[in-house]
Amino acid sequence: MENTHPQHTNRQYEEELRNLRTSLLQMGGLVERQISNAIDSLVERDSELARQTIARDAEVNRMDIDIDALCIRLLALRQPAASDLRFITTGLKITTDLERIGDMAVNICERVLELNHEPVLKPYIDIPRMAALAQSMVKDSLDAFVNNDTDLAEQVIERDDEVDQLNYQIFRELLSYMAEEPRTIGRATRVLFVSKYLERIADHATNIAEMVVFMVKGKTIRHMDKDKK
Amino acid sequence: MENTHPQHTNRQYEEELRNLRTSLLQMGGLVERQISNAIDSLVERDSELARQTIARDAEVNRMDIDIDALCIRLLALRQPAASDLRFITTGLKITTDLERIGDMAVNICERVLELNHEPVLKPYIDIPRMAALAQSMVKDSLDAFVNNDTDLAEQVIERDDEVDQLNYQIFRELLSYMAEEPRTIGRATRVLFVSKYLERIADHATNIAEMVVFMVKGKTIRHMDKDKK
Repeated sequence: MENTHPQHTNRQYEEELRNLRTSLLQMGGLVERQISNAIDSLVERDSELARQTIARDAEVNRMDIDIDALCIRLLALRQPAASDLRFITTGLKITTDLERIGDMAVNICERVLELNHEPVLKPYIDIPRMAALAQSMVKDSLDAFVNNDTDLAEQVIERDDEVDQLNYQIFRELLSYMAEEPRTIGRATRVLFVSKYLERIADHATNIAEMVVFMVKGKTIRHMDKDKK
Repeated sequence: MENTHPQHTNRQYEEELRNLRTSLLQMGGLVERQISNAIDSLVERDSELARQTIARDAEVNRMDIDIDALCIRLLALRQPAASDLRFITTGLKITTDLERIGDMAVNICERVLELNHEPVLKPYIDIPRMAALAQSMVKDSLDAFVNNDTDLAEQVIERDDEVDQLNYQIFRELLSYMAEEPRTIGRATRVLFVSKYLERIADHATNIAEMVVFMVKGKTIRHMDKDKK
C-alpha cells in the first residue's frame, strides 16, 4: 500500500507526522508553563496569576482536541504501519495525560485562591522543589517520546520515587503541624492537596515515559514496577 | 479499500470488533469489582481482602496491555474507516482510564492497611455511598461506549457533580473532626485520601463518558463544561 503513494503525498505525510510531533511538544511546553505559573501563584500568593492560569486551561483543552483530530486523520487517510502506527497511537494517549496535567495545575490554582483568603501558613520549601522535579519529568518524558529515547524515559520513571518521597515527607510534616496547631488544619490540608496534585503530575509523566518504553521496545515494561511492589 | 476484503475476512473483522467490545466490558467489570472489594475491605477492616485486591491489580494491567495490542492490530491490519476508527481510538484511550481506576482501588487498599493498624475512627456512611455512585458511573460510561448511547453518557457526566458534593461534604466533616480531636489527624487524613481516590474514579468515568459523546457526535462536547466554570 505505502508504495503506491505518489512522491508529493509521501512528503505531505512526513510533514503531518512532523506537525504532530511539534504540536505535542507545544502542548507539553504550555502545560509546563501552567505548572510553574500555578506554583508561582502559590509561593507569591498571587491570586491574579492563579486566575489567569485557570483561564488558560481552555487553551490546553483545545490543543488536546486538535491533536486527537490530527492523529485520527493520520490513521484514517495514511493508514500508517509499524513504527508510525505506534507513534500515532501513543500520541493519542499522551494528549490525555497532558490534558490531565493541565487540570492538576488548575486544581493547584483553586487551592491557592482559597489559601489567599487566610494568613500565610509557612514558607514553602519542599513544594517548589517537588514542582520543579515534576515539571522536568513532564519535559523529559516528551523529549523521550519525540526522540524515541528509552534511556531518558527510564530516568523519568526512576525520578518518580523522589517525588513520592518528597510527597510523603510533606505529608508527615503537615500532619505534625496540624497536630500542634489545630487551627491550621484547613490551610494545611489544602497544602497537602497541592502536594498530592504535584505527585499526580509526576505520575502522568511516568505514565508517558512508560508508554515511550513500550512504544520503542514493544515490550510490556509498563506496569512491571507496579506489579513488583 | 474496504470492499476488496473477501467475505470471510469481513466476518473475521466483525468478530475482532466484537472481541474488543467484550474485552473492554470484561475489564470494566473487573475494575468495578476492584472498587467494591476495596470499599468492603475498608468498611469491614479486612486486611486480607485489601491484600488480595492489591494483588489482583496485575490482572487489570494485563488486560490493559492486551486490549491496547488488540486495538493496534485492528488499526494495522484492518485499516478501519469512519465510525470503526473512532470506536477503536476511543477504546485505546478508555483502557488507560480503566487501568488508572484500578490503581485508585489499589491506593484505597493501601490506606486500608494503614488504617487497620489503628483503632476505628468512626462508622463509614458517606464513603460507601460515594463508592456506589462512582462504581455506577464506571459501569454506565462503558455501557454508553459499547451502545453509542450519548444520553447515558450525559447522565454519567451529570452524576459527577453529586460525587464532588459528597467529597466536599466528607472533607468539611473530617476537617472539623480533626480540629476537635487532634489525635485523629493521621487517620482522618487517610480517610480523606480515600474520598479523593473515589472522586478521581468518578473523574475517570466522566472522562470516558465525555469521550463517548465526542465519539458519537464528533463534536467538541469534551471540556465544554470545564471551560464554562
